[in-house]
Amino acid sequence: MANVSKKVSWSGRDVDDDEAAPLLRRTARPGTPAGEATPLLNGAGPAAVRASPHSAFFRIGQMSNVELDDELLDPDTDPLHPFPKEIPHNEKLLSLKYEAFRTVEIKRWVICAMIGILTGLVACFIDIVVEKLAGLKYRVVKDNIDKFTARGGLSFSLLLWASLNVAFVLLGSVIVAFIEPVAAGSGIPQIKCFLNGVKIPHVVRLKTLVIKVSGVILSVVGGLAVGKVMECSCPCLSHSAPAGPGAGVSPRSRAHLNAAVCAFQEGPMIHSGSVIAAGVSQGRSTSLKRDFKIFEYFRRDTEKRDFVSAGAAAGVSAAFGAPVGGVLFSLEEGASFWNQFLTWRIFFASMISTFTLNFVLSIYHGNVWDLSSPGLINFGRFDTETMVYTIHEIPIFIAMGVVGGILGAVFNALNYWLTMFRIRYIHRPCLQVIEAMLVAAVTATVAFVLIYSSRDCQPLQGSSVSYPLQLFCADGEYNSMAAAFFNTPEKSVVSLFHDPPGSYNPMTLGLFTLVYFFLACWTYGLTVSAGVFIPSLLIGAAWGRLFGISLSYLTGAAVWADPGKYALMGAAAQLGGIVRMTLSLTVIMMEATSNVTYGFPIMLVLMTAKIVGDVFIEGLYDMHIQLQSVPFLHWEAPVTSHSLTAREVMSTPVTCLRRREKVGIIVDVLSSTASNHNGFPVVEDADGTQPARLQGLILRSQLIVLLKHKVFIERSCMGLLRRRLRLKDFRDAYPRFPPIQSIHVSQDERECTMDLSEFMNPSPYTVPQEASLPRVFKLFRALGLRHLVVVDNCNQVVGLVTRKDLARYRLGKGGLEELSLAQT
Amino acid sequence: MANVSKKVSWSGRDVDDDEAAPLLRRTARPGTPAGEATPLLNGAGPAAVRASPHSAFFRIGQMSNVELDDELLDPDTDPLHPFPKEIPHNEKLLSLKYEAFRTVEIKRWVICAMIGILTGLVACFIDIVVEKLAGLKYRVVKDNIDKFTARGGLSFSLLLWASLNVAFVLLGSVIVAFIEPVAAGSGIPQIKCFLNGVKIPHVVRLKTLVIKVSGVILSVVGGLAVGKVMECSCPCLSHSAPAGPGAGVSPRSRAHLNAAVCAFQEGPMIHSGSVIAAGVSQGRSTSLKRDFKIFEYFRRDTEKRDFVSAGAAAGVSAAFGAPVGGVLFSLEEGASFWNQFLTWRIFFASMISTFTLNFVLSIYHGNVWDLSSPGLINFGRFDTETMVYTIHEIPIFIAMGVVGGILGAVFNALNYWLTMFRIRYIHRPCLQVIEAMLVAAVTATVAFVLIYSSRDCQPLQGSSVSYPLQLFCADGEYNSMAAAFFNTPEKSVVSLFHDPPGSYNPMTLGLFTLVYFFLACWTYGLTVSAGVFIPSLLIGAAWGRLFGISLSYLTGAAVWADPGKYALMGAAAQLGGIVRMTLSLTVIMMEATSNVTYGFPIMLVLMTAKIVGDVFIEGLYDMHIQLQSVPFLHWEAPVTSHSLTAREVMSTPVTCLRRREKVGIIVDVLSSTASNHNGFPVVEDADGTQPARLQGLILRSQLIVLLKHKVFIERSCMGLLRRRLRLKDFRDAYPRFPPIQSIHVSQDERECTMDLSEFMNPSPYTVPQEASLPRVFKLFRALGLRHLVVVDNCNQVVGLVTRKDLARYRLGKGGLEELSLAQT
Repeated sequence: MANVSKKVSWSGRDVDDDEAAPLLRRTARPGTPAGEATPLLNGAGPAAVRASPHSAFFRIGQMSNVELDDELLDPDTDPLHPFPKEIPHNEKLLSLKYEAFRTVEIKRWVICAMIGILTGLVACFIDIVVEKLAGLKYRVVKDNIDKFTARGGLSFSLLLWASLNVAFVLLGSVIVAFIEPVAAGSGIPQIKCFLNGVKIPHVVRLKTLVIKVSGVILSVVGGLAVGKVMECSCPCLSHSAPAGPGAGVSPRSRAHLNAAVCAFQEGPMIHSGSVIAAGVSQGRSTSLKRDFKIFEYFRRDTEKRDFVSAGAAAGVSAAFGAPVGGVLFSLEEGASFWNQFLTWRIFFASMISTFTLNFVLSIYHGNVWDLSSPGLINFGRFDTETMVYTIHEIPIFIAMGVVGGILGAVFNALNYWLTMFRIRYIHRPCLQVIEAMLVAAVTATVAFVLIYSSRDCQPLQGSSVSYPLQLFCADGEYNSMAAAFFNTPEKSVVSLFHDPPGSYNPMTLGLFTLVYFFLACWTYGLTVSAGVFIPSLLIGAAWGRLFGISLSYLTGAAVWADPGKYALMGAAAQLGGIVRMTLSLTVIMMEATSNVTYGFPIMLVLMTAKIVGDVFIEGLYDMHIQLQSVPFLHWEAPVTSHSLTAREVMSTPVTCLRRREKVGIIVDVLSSTASNHNGFPVVEDADGTQPARLQGLILRSQLIVLLKHKVFIERSCMGLLRRRLRLKDFRDAYPRFPPIQSIHVSQDERECTMDLSEFMNPSPYTVPQEASLPRVFKLFRALGLRHLVVVDNCNQVVGLVTRKDLARYRLGKGGLEELSLAQT
Repeated sequence: MANVSKKVSWSGRDVDDDEAAPLLRRTARPGTPAGEATPLLNGAGPAAVRASPHSAFFRIGQMSNVELDDELLDPDTDPLHPFPKEIPHNEKLLSLKYEAFRTVEIKRWVICAMIGILTGLVACFIDIVVEKLAGLKYRVVKDNIDKFTARGGLSFSLLLWASLNVAFVLLGSVIVAFIEPVAAGSGIPQIKCFLNGVKIPHVVRLKTLVIKVSGVILSVVGGLAVGKVMECSCPCLSHSAPAGPGAGVSPRSRAHLNAAVCAFQEGPMIHSGSVIAAGVSQGRSTSLKRDFKIFEYFRRDTEKRDFVSAGAAAGVSAAFGAPVGGVLFSLEEGASFWNQFLTWRIFFASMISTFTLNFVLSIYHGNVWDLSSPGLINFGRFDTETMVYTIHEIPIFIAMGVVGGILGAVFNALNYWLTMFRIRYIHRPCLQVIEAMLVAAVTATVAFVLIYSSRDCQPLQGSSVSYPLQLFCADGEYNSMAAAFFNTPEKSVVSLFHDPPGSYNPMTLGLFTLVYFFLACWTYGLTVSAGVFIPSLLIGAAWGRLFGISLSYLTGAAVWADPGKYALMGAAAQLGGIVRMTLSLTVIMMEATSNVTYGFPIMLVLMTAKIVGDVFIEGLYDMHIQLQSVPFLHWEAPVTSHSLTAREVMSTPVTCLRRREKVGIIVDVLSSTASNHNGFPVVEDADGTQPARLQGLILRSQLIVLLKHKVFIERSCMGLLRRRLRLKDFRDAYPRFPPIQSIHVSQDERECTMDLSEFMNPSPYTVPQEASLPRVFKLFRALGLRHLVVVDNCNQVVGLVTRKDLARYRLGKGGLEELSLAQT
């Protein structure tokens, strides 16, 4: 599996981030340390390099090459301070005066408002374009059917319909596979990783957003999985769509179940919101090469991550009309350090997002003051008065949770094998496109078979079906199976929840559950932009309703056995069994159903589903994250890891730099594949006899900026370069620092010296080597660290712990396991 | 103010916790260090003590005096480990095998379920007892009125009613003032402090719970503030109560406004839930001197705090039927490190709590399967279809938020002065009881005046008023003002929210707002158990409705200007302006109104109220916390504190102990008032020439347990005491470790030696002295530290940072301020 994992990455191309690069260091551990030319611990590097000290000519003492913006500089001239001068390290650079702080705080709120507005607008855009395109497709097919039905050419019409679908899917798949592979799937695993602190290339770029939005629209219109004409369009379309042969009257529509394993936008919305947040908060787009010169203060990893949390929450909020659920999703998946102000801003962004969507869709639908569409998906209101639950139903709900957990585990296991197969054999873009088309074709075939085999004709009079097709039925009737394919998936879910008992044929429900289950499983992981929420809900609602019908039958149609209630619980159980989300999913379902009363049973069902599912296999998103071998940190250290100490976990030997270091050495260190860390401990200028003590920590990115601007002691005093380095230079370089190979350093310059003490962080977090793994883990998780220096009793560097070192350990069936992350 | 603050503490008696004890150390800082007899930094203690080393006779090397339970001991015999033996420090002691972990995890869930159930039951108990007592009171007064009205003795009846109220309040005040002063007030500030990590004595004891529950019942029945007969009783009482002279007909009840600044149970419920959580999780009650020998694993500060979070959430959930709001309240106020599993457990407890309440009340009211009472307070359903808001109302809502912020600030400022007055002059229990009675009497007087001055008679036909009184009206009519006093406060709020336009007289509303505002302000801080939520909501609803009426009048009764909507916004604005809660309050209001649509305007209103209010004065709870001078840590370090480093913040000199320390020295250190820290750094056995390096950290409580069990090296080998110390001894002693004075150490024993290295934490968190204040702050907040050792470049102890050191700094109007916490 290790060599399999190596091949795959979400971007589908070579990773350009060293977090994801292979860690040769670890394989080099038992033998001779790799990268011997670099100064190792305690200055144990080559003596030749060490022996050439700063020549007397160049020696002019410390000069500050950093000019700080006036409003950023703290005038702290503390007389007690033993250091010769206050070191303007990274944190100091960012310290602000009170007024400046107010400005920054206001900017944060403005950014969150912009994130909310833009996310809401993108949701509206997707909704409206899907509606228009799907309407167009419906009219084409409808006209064709009207023309050919009389002549018996119905197969031809259905073939046209299938071709249209395949064409849309082809287009959607091509742009994803060839332009931006990271836009595939729901995006939730990628965002989880990003919020966890793992840098995945391209994941928050504007290009990704454009491809994602187009891909979602195309796969939705392409009717992936079961091939529908009208899926995911807006309910109001039912008024504007051309009326079929006659208008419906009867309120019940047998087999109203929608065959859509719809590629809906819940995951894509979360991803879109995140991209918007990342873009807005940085005030520029590298894809467009535009820099608006605003929000430069936020060009840092931590700030960006906070805003991406807000964007993800805004996405959930727009998709489900669930602002609180969005906040909780974002916290559950992303935040490690609960901060009241941050949470409040996230909530603000969520609220703005759902409000914007609501407002724009209200205007679009013509009833400006209505504000009745809080989210793209709405489960309809469950009325507390009519649909209560009683206490003896609780064991039944728990049993449904068990079923959901098992079905979810089966789904995940199947998808795991499928993903392994894809990783092995389908990693070329053209193959991926072909697979997507194959799925679309199979979906269409299944639809054919189901429609052909169905002879379930319903009278048109009084039917509430929006898109009736006559097909083989008599005049004044329509084919209910075909009608099912023309309904929207949300409406299908809502119908399953709310239709009165007796609306559905148990056989139909069973058949649909089975077919959709496998189609949905196949669809997830295709190279198209599509989520798994709505398919899961649909599967769950179908078998939940089936469950309710059986129960009603067994109990002799007791009054409390309302199938709609069981459809809701089944949907929750199935979704919970697949994604294993807990608190946030409960709140999302509560908000989407506008019902607080069902909170308790939904929570019970989700909890049971999670517990049962976790016995077999982990959640779908976690599974995909693990298949990518990214160093993902979970919430807590494995419970049995107390016996491990920092000493066993850390990487050693670690490459250290001296306060004043030769440029040549720095270039060698940065170029070496063995020392691919992002941070380097800075140690004292040791004279060789005494071990060097830790002085600070400097980041790879900082070193690269310093090298790029040639901030050498010798240059600054010889007048070769008078330009002084500003904080802005660091910010402008963020987040795409040039690779070391692109920086040319001449042979003369290699002999120069850099004074790192001005730029390093002088008080990095450290742990003693006896610290236990849970303690180290907690530090990483709580403080969002990327590297932690391990020191001995005398403050000498003995090792470095990175995220990878921690992510290796996880709890397996039999106890603590060491993952093969490092060898990939 | 400093000396004023000194006198007050929530317990009203001498604090028995050193966190709250005066920090003499700080005053001793500039001059000679206090406690010179204790070994100071680097073993600079008296040479005489140092000069007496372990005699050869006693020297037998390290012997483990700790016997670990088998399932707790990790068999880690790491050959790489350079230490002679693995030190079984605190964290190691608690490490568990996988199976044991599962058991612990299951226990956690069981405890949370128990917390939820018990909190729900307590809420039911309060509800039912209040209903019964209030019903009794109503009948007595009613009979009296019926008897005396004919004879013109109405004043006598009203006097009887007032006397009854005063008597109830007297009883409630007496038990609080004389038995458990910490049960006074809403309890929210105390729980905030507890969750923040500040130990307040008695706050989570069973006795406190009993007094709190009784106090709440008595002050509610006593009708504090405006004196009502029926306040806070259950709506179903309206059916069981004896019908007055005739049954009502007209649906509108003018001046239906309830004059109750009701001492309702929202804050008390939060406190009760917390006490229950603390009690259940520890598996014993020290008040009852019962130890159930269960849940011993959780007898630690961190675990206890987690459970108290769950209890607080369960309390909110029971009070408002808002489980999600409860979770968010708990997180907003308490948690610093967001943990998914913890949050999920908190949510579970909340859900169980609201479910239990719902279930028990359903049974009590006779309709078992209904489950229609999710919380004690319910604002009634706001129907989205009929009460929408439009986008041009948003500026109006924001204006209401401004008004709410200003009124809230006025409320808080008045309450601040009042509290200062009380701290200065009313600190004796009997005075406190007299003040409470005075408030009850004034409240009754105001009620008298209002009822007497009212000649607003309404026909009884068709009136929905539950408790009509005829008084001065003609037969077949009732006094609407008197009726107002007989309505429940929640029903008043609901009426203000939902009654159709025109139900209220603007003059009445204005008068009530004014009177209640001052009465509520006076009531908060009395020595009774009472909250501030419902009074705030009532005030806000009253002026909000007034605002809506004015707006309707100004706009010519436009259709969108529904006064009920503005009553809701006014209630949110007023409550937000007073307590300054944000996210959790929004969600609580959303859940209590069962309406998601109003989320956005409520959020805007609350945010505006908070921003405006914060300009003038801080929130009510924060104000009271600050008046107590507790070392409360806020979410973030003051923004302008980057220039401060650990060196400036830390306490120095710090008392260090050596790995092997004389018993006499330890006793002296613990007895000294100068070294009143809870943790002591352990340093190397220095020979005097070399500075001592940090080896670990040991807690005061651990030292006391060691002293109590006389774990001396000499004793263990001389056979004087063969009993070996177990982990259980530490757990049993928690949380009330005996004071050092109670442990007798003979003169011989003073010469013995203790080996601390087996019990200390060998890898305490440290920071270098250059670390900035925000960095230190973040460590404290994220990791929940109580003390942090500051070391220099060579790992030598230079100081200790405690919560107090950090809490001193706060952002004032003009910049960073140093509070006078230490001098209190």
